[in-house]
Amino acid sequence: MNDTRIRSVGHRAKVMSAEDAALLIAPNTTVGLSGFTASGYPTAVPLALAARIEAEHLAGRPFKLRIWTGASTGPELDGALAKADGIEFRLPYNSDPTCRDKINRGQMEYFDMHLSQVAPAAWQGILGPLDTAIIQVTGICEDGSLIPASSVGNNKTWLDRAGQVILEINRWQNPELLGMHDIYYGAALPPNRVPIPLIHPGDRLGEPCFRCDPDRIVAIAGHLLEFLEHEVRKGRLPPSLLPLQSGVGNTANAVLAGLIDAPFDNLTAYTEVIQDGMMALMDSGKLRLASSTALSLSPDLSESVNRRMGEYRDRIILRSQEISNHPEIIRRLGVIAMNGMIEADIYGNVNSTHIMGSRIQNGIGGSGDFARNAYISIFMSASTAKAEAISTIVPCASHVDHINQDVQVIVTEQGLADLRGLLPKQRAKVVIETCAHPVYRPMLADYHQRALAGSYGLQTPMLLNEALSWHARYVATGSMAVSG
Amino acid sequence: MNDTRIRSVGHRAKVMSAEDAALLIAPNTTVGLSGFTASGYPTAVPLALAARIEAEHLAGRPFKLRIWTGASTGPELDGALAKADGIEFRLPYNSDPTCRDKINRGQMEYFDMHLSQVAPAAWQGILGPLDTAIIQVTGICEDGSLIPASSVGNNKTWLDRAGQVILEINRWQNPELLGMHDIYYGAALPPNRVPIPLIHPGDRLGEPCFRCDPDRIVAIAGHLLEFLEHEVRKGRLPPSLLPLQSGVGNTANAVLAGLIDAPFDNLTAYTEVIQDGMMALMDSGKLRLASSTALSLSPDLSESVNRRMGEYRDRIILRSQEISNHPEIIRRLGVIAMNGMIEADIYGNVNSTHIMGSRIQNGIGGSGDFARNAYISIFMSASTAKAEAISTIVPCASHVDHINQDVQVIVTEQGLADLRGLLPKQRAKVVIETCAHPVYRPMLADYHQRALAGSYGLQTPMLLNEALSWHARYVATGSMAVSG
Repeated sequence: MNDTRIRSVGHRAKVMSAEDAALLIAPNTTVGLSGFTASGYPTAVPLALAARIEAEHLAGRPFKLRIWTGASTGPELDGALAKADGIEFRLPYNSDPTCRDKINRGQMEYFDMHLSQVAPAAWQGILGPLDTAIIQVTGICEDGSLIPASSVGNNKTWLDRAGQVILEINRWQNPELLGMHDIYYGAALPPNRVPIPLIHPGDRLGEPCFRCDPDRIVAIAGHLLEFLEHEVRKGRLPPSLLPLQSGVGNTANAVLAGLIDAPFDNLTAYTEVIQDGMMALMDSGKLRLASSTALSLSPDLSESVNRRMGEYRDRIILRSQEISNHPEIIRRLGVIAMNGMIEADIYGNVNSTHIMGSRIQNGIGGSGDFARNAYISIFMSASTAKAEAISTIVPCASHVDHINQDVQVIVTEQGLADLRGLLPKQRAKVVIETCAHPVYRPMLADYHQRALAGSYGLQTPMLLNEALSWHARYVATGSMAVSG
Repeated sequence: MNDTRIRSVGHRAKVMSAEDAALLIAPNTTVGLSGFTASGYPTAVPLALAARIEAEHLAGRPFKLRIWTGASTGPELDGALAKADGIEFRLPYNSDPTCRDKINRGQMEYFDMHLSQVAPAAWQGILGPLDTAIIQVTGICEDGSLIPASSVGNNKTWLDRAGQVILEINRWQNPELLGMHDIYYGAALPPNRVPIPLIHPGDRLGEPCFRCDPDRIVAIAGHLLEFLEHEVRKGRLPPSLLPLQSGVGNTANAVLAGLIDAPFDNLTAYTEVIQDGMMALMDSGKLRLASSTALSLSPDLSESVNRRMGEYRDRIILRSQEISNHPEIIRRLGVIAMNGMIEADIYGNVNSTHIMGSRIQNGIGGSGDFARNAYISIFMSASTAKAEAISTIVPCASHVDHINQDVQVIVTEQGLADLRGLLPKQRAKVVIETCAHPVYRPMLADYHQRALAGSYGLQTPMLLNEALSWHARYVATGSMAVSG
């Protein structure tokens, strides 16, 4: 152990192995873990916990946990615990394929929440008690305060609420990270809520470290594994690497990187994750500063950003996700929201979560926090999926996460539809003509024409017997297209 | 004219008849009118305008207007202009039956917006220019400032933005109304937005009157018609009167009145309209104060409240609707939102606007502002409509205004379903067992059981070929029930 990371003498006495820390977690309890995207999440304790669960199961003893995080995490956490069949309940967002499969088979419970509402709901008590917090930090100060890692998420709330706290030290992350975070302790439940005094994206409201009562810490597990090595070892990335998945996704990432050559300067960001595209924009000098709850970078970029962390500390601010996603701030700042989607219907209702209406993909994540309160709310997707077997523009969304009032711009590779100020029938015309793939455009136009003639009402024309027929046809035949 | 209502000498010189004022409005222009529910809306000028439009049409000259208001208004405004076929476009909310019919026949354009977003959108410019404002006031001060009537709505924004302003003096409303309003001039577009400094429902941030540059006022039309007389004369109410329709509706009204006998004291309200039930609660001493953008009272109660306006001035605050419905404030205060609905599906997705998915009823109004940001979001309806031909609990909402994440409690006469913390499948079970009518409960349970077995994914089970079949059956046969 390198003591420069653990400056509190009291904490040094509590260092233990990941395996011993895992023994502190009882079956049928609730565990709150750090992590917001594959960033700042513990790995050693969850892997040891997964091994313990597998051993218990082999011995015929049931062992399941309720898992709370910030958002998605990585394979050593969600993936390992799900493969060990150790998760009975998961919130508030998931992108792990093993979890997704179990959820859609009905073998794991999944509570898909607006990200900004998780911490208040935990304080309100409607989620039940939190038994254990497992939080990745990059160091412990002499006074016991905790230096956060590369994401903040719900960590402040888990630390405040948990019955016991297990810390993992990430020794790979550069100590220069200290000072990048802004941990706001001013949130409260009503009637004691006050204005969150954030007026500019760069305002700092709080403290650089988490407060944590040392008496509540029962274990500290060191963690030195390099991010790149983890990813490669799990077979999730080839040795040459690929970008990490995130709620925001590759399309948004590419859009951000594209801003480098655009005639804009002095940009700022107020977002939930900082991805590669945003870092490229920052390195180009175009992006002046960025506020988020997590750095969610590709392994390659993580390495280089970590080396130069001191250069970024004044330009990046990491906040709790109830602040990064807070409607008050998003509305005040007038954020331009750019989110991916699964499908949009011709009226601009967007499905972000459920494939064919029932099969969950990831979750609503922060998209509902941002889309409704944004100054301009943009949704993006390719116009087709599965080799054109699926049209992402459909007559009727099979599940609605973002109602038409919250969707102002839709973009596909076919074009951009600016729906601001347009009425339902106008929206349909523009969406079909601008965003739909040529293979599906005539089918959509035909549906809409017939709906205009045969709908029960004409404000938002709809053919009830056909509205979901494209999805039913896909499930039955493997394609939304009518075979000719 | 009674000069105590018009204390500004400059304004007295501009008094004219409603007919002359109506001549100032050109065809094919946009008119912003006061009014939020049947409260504080002009009547004399709209009636004169409707007569002028009818005369123009008889003479073969086209005459249509784009109409903006706060929310719904009354028959002398929406009803009269619609009957004269003088409205080509309407925002942001409608409950007038003539307008509704024209909208659903495709003869009138209707832009159904979140109420809190109307004023910002007008400032942003995406709604186009505003040519004329017609605003009901109760008086004009010596300095030209305007004493508001019984609703505020978007009046501040219309007065600030319009090319010309026509004022109607409501001489029936008690002058003691002065001091009840709180007109906040601190709103701005980003990047200049600052926190709205409202921490308690009773805080006052602004001024009691509207500012209005006297040079922009081109007409003042007096208005002395008594509210009750108007209603009776139009044949809309019998002489014995009925309660007025409002977006919040009779169910919510009854719930509020029911709180009189509940063991709660010192209640407050932060809402968009104050209806009879809330006034009864205030008169009982249980409701300490109420903040809203409009007093929307039954004619009977209007009369008595108007007489005692001075007693209410310290307990009622009327604000602009972008403040009364602001997500920042609603989230901060932790409002308990109680809204009506058309239907809810078994997962708790709520349709507030479109009957059978396509036929608009009123509009989303403020429900989206409140439901997503509420501390507890409650939706209410009888479990059936049309003599049990329609179940308000359905397998799949035919239109979604409030996604399941924004719906925490559903109440019908059958029972109350507390959905907080429940997963989709749990929600379905509770909604079916608690809220559905006995006639439809077995059908819903049967659908859900078969969906659990036959759905593409199991997170939110759905049978694509059946999901909207209840609505299709109603349209085809007049009942959602299967004839047996």
